[in-house]
Amino acid sequence: MNDSLRTTGAFARRRIDHSMFERSGEIDIVAQELVLYLRAGDFGAVKAFFVLQELEDIADLLENMDAADALVGLRQLPLIDQAELFGDLKPTTQVALADAMPRGELARIMTAMSHDERADLYKALDPIARSAVLPGLAQAERDDLRRLASHAEGTAGAIMTSDYATLKPELKAPEALDALRRQAIGSETIYNTYVVDAQHRLLGVVSLRELLIAGTHETIAEIMEDDPVTIPVDADQEECARIIARYDLIALPVIDGEGRIVGIVTADDAFDVAEEEATEDMLRGSNIEPIGGSLSEAGIPQMYRARIVWLVLLVFGNIFSGAGIAHFEATIAGNLALLFFLPLLIASGGNAGAQSATLMVRAMATGEVHGSDWRRMLLRELGIGLLLGLTMAVAVSGVGMIRAGFDVTVAVATAMVLIVLVGVTVGVLLPFILSKVGFDPATASGPLVTSIADVLGVLIYFSIAGAVLGV
Amino acid sequence: MNDSLRTTGAFARRRIDHSMFERSGEIDIVAQELVLYLRAGDFGAVKAFFVLQELEDIADLLENMDAADALVGLRQLPLIDQAELFGDLKPTTQVALADAMPRGELARIMTAMSHDERADLYKALDPIARSAVLPGLAQAERDDLRRLASHAEGTAGAIMTSDYATLKPELKAPEALDALRRQAIGSETIYNTYVVDAQHRLLGVVSLRELLIAGTHETIAEIMEDDPVTIPVDADQEECARIIARYDLIALPVIDGEGRIVGIVTADDAFDVAEEEATEDMLRGSNIEPIGGSLSEAGIPQMYRARIVWLVLLVFGNIFSGAGIAHFEATIAGNLALLFFLPLLIASGGNAGAQSATLMVRAMATGEVHGSDWRRMLLRELGIGLLLGLTMAVAVSGVGMIRAGFDVTVAVATAMVLIVLVGVTVGVLLPFILSKVGFDPATASGPLVTSIADVLGVLIYFSIAGAVLGV
Repeated sequence: MNDSLRTTGAFARRRIDHSMFERSGEIDIVAQELVLYLRAGDFGAVKAFFVLQELEDIADLLENMDAADALVGLRQLPLIDQAELFGDLKPTTQVALADAMPRGELARIMTAMSHDERADLYKALDPIARSAVLPGLAQAERDDLRRLASHAEGTAGAIMTSDYATLKPELKAPEALDALRRQAIGSETIYNTYVVDAQHRLLGVVSLRELLIAGTHETIAEIMEDDPVTIPVDADQEECARIIARYDLIALPVIDGEGRIVGIVTADDAFDVAEEEATEDMLRGSNIEPIGGSLSEAGIPQMYRARIVWLVLLVFGNIFSGAGIAHFEATIAGNLALLFFLPLLIASGGNAGAQSATLMVRAMATGEVHGSDWRRMLLRELGIGLLLGLTMAVAVSGVGMIRAGFDVTVAVATAMVLIVLVGVTVGVLLPFILSKVGFDPATASGPLVTSIADVLGVLIYFSIAGAVLGV
Repeated sequence: MNDSLRTTGAFARRRIDHSMFERSGEIDIVAQELVLYLRAGDFGAVKAFFVLQELEDIADLLENMDAADALVGLRQLPLIDQAELFGDLKPTTQVALADAMPRGELARIMTAMSHDERADLYKALDPIARSAVLPGLAQAERDDLRRLASHAEGTAGAIMTSDYATLKPELKAPEALDALRRQAIGSETIYNTYVVDAQHRLLGVVSLRELLIAGTHETIAEIMEDDPVTIPVDADQEECARIIARYDLIALPVIDGEGRIVGIVTADDAFDVAEEEATEDMLRGSNIEPIGGSLSEAGIPQMYRARIVWLVLLVFGNIFSGAGIAHFEATIAGNLALLFFLPLLIASGGNAGAQSATLMVRAMATGEVHGSDWRRMLLRELGIGLLLGLTMAVAVSGVGMIRAGFDVTVAVATAMVLIVLVGVTVGVLLPFILSKVGFDPATASGPLVTSIADVLGVLIYFSIAGAVLGV
């Protein structure tokens, strides 16, 4: 027996720290230890250890070992836990494990998985694996998979799940509780239940809380909330997240054009969507295309592709700044001291503009600002920009007087105010314009607005300097 | 009777659109209409209208009218809805309404509010209003308020609520269901219940789902999950959000140093925290200090204060770039064509660096990357940076050959590769350094990294150009 296995007892009693700040590196070490137990066939210790962990942590451990070891580890869990854990794995790990296991085993796990995660897994599999697993599934599961997998990415339909609980409106409260007990195992949540008619049209929502405190003679129709908040199946997934956050919902029912419920989006999935969208907006703000996976584990080729196009476009964009400078070569040659102030002036326009753009982008993403608000936002930002520009002009004037004399200082201070005003104007308007023409406004908030501000800054500065200095 | 009130029936049957994309502007119009009904005293129509709306939407309507009108509107709701709606209002509106109503009325609403929202409201009141309302509250509420309000902002304690349901471990499942029915009204959630001993130490968690399907002779101790995921009361609120998202929790129990449960953080509050933190990180990325409220409604003075300090600091930072240029005045005077490439070279370093910084900041915020990962991240970014720099060098070489000849092109292309490598190095390391010394790493991801890259870009470019051109 391996030396490191002497501590079986200690290993089996160990529990992974849930504080993410404290456990950096811990997962790796525990995963290596776990592999030793798995390879030694000491499944008793593994099972004892697994009982103490959360499934999400076990999933992290399995991510950190070979597919063959991970598969042996997975098999030490009951089927229901295997199915839940499988949904927590990254798509690449899911596919690797799916490829490593017999198709019958995969079909059993998929049958037990929650319906949305199962559909996501199905979408991640290659066509061969898909057709291999389908015969192992019951007809109902196959139909459900095809239905859930048919919705376009980024829509409510693509993130909804079909394992929700339903009730008939004529049931009495105690009958409804019994019906829910029977549906509890197969449903993603039973805390909200959906009341449907014979055509599966959504009539209302009942919370388990209301059901529990209802009188025994009350019917579902009496205690349900009529006309609940819903979302169309083809609505944007971001809107699901916003509505769930706004109305503090446990789940949001998704309806088709005829008012039939076709699925629900749960709050935890909406949370993930909001996180993804925030990440995407932040990356786009630095002109990085969405990576769609781990930021820290994306490979060099993937990262290169996500970044190079915009960087090269911006290089060419900045040629205009260079051309602007070349245009004013005579002015510059006549007074090389002007160059001293060039970087700080053009950077100031870009910095103030990036601030305005970031504010607009975020307020648009959280639904606080809409396309029609652009005039109001521009007016406010111009007011702020004037104050910012004046302050920055004062700050730079001291340096200007020491360094370059009165005339240059006047030129620099005047240019500063104008450049900052132009910067915030570009920063406010660019997100609205991008959004209007169908692009992601988040693209505006970083290098793009900076580059535009740079070009305009060069033109403004040297034009003013030329006029003031009479070159 | 007012003309616009003829449509009472239509008004009372109208329902506000939940789609945030579609209802831009709708709230304003409906709020104006509502004010007419309130002032006309047509409370029947108002009540009929309110019944069809979600409380969050009514809150939005009340935000869009004077405090006096809003107070009349608020009074058309049952007390329990008034209390819930009050928690949805912005702090400024809460304070305005609280000031407008008799202290007894405020005390009744506060008694019915959820405990965390009540504590937030209490913290928002001025000292006079606080001492006015306290006598109207029962002793238990006063103690609860003081306890919840005592935790430092940004901690789990500051966002937790004390209205959670508890169970004793020896209860049988049906007894526990009865106990929960009694606690249902006063608890934020009964879907997770906390099992405590006589000292209020947390023994486990029971979900209502498990309770519902448990056998009638099973005890809580048998069906509860031992050793649940918890968080210390002084932990960071961001960590609450991360843990709730990771483990898909409905609520996270907060414990003190003795393992006693002191509150719970619910998933919807964690969602709000995550949104706030994402907003804060994005603003900091453009060097805007946190605003702590609506982005679109913050006033000019508030926005000015949040933005000016960094902008002025960056102006002075960019003086170094100017000084760098001044240092190379002889090189530049000898070949003014070099200036053409200056903007695109320094912008490229800043752009690539901002990309790296944004990736690090976001990966740190989501808990994907930790302080100890800096070496691995730097190596990857240098690999990507080399590929990016080479591609950008090729892109700029074409322009160089057309515009400035072979020697300048060699200098520009070489500088491009080095500047991009330096940019990504600064971009990777700056967030780690800021985090290490106790600053928010998010500050690194925009203008700050760009400004540093600018200075270094000037030095690198003109040094290489000087060497290549032999100036």
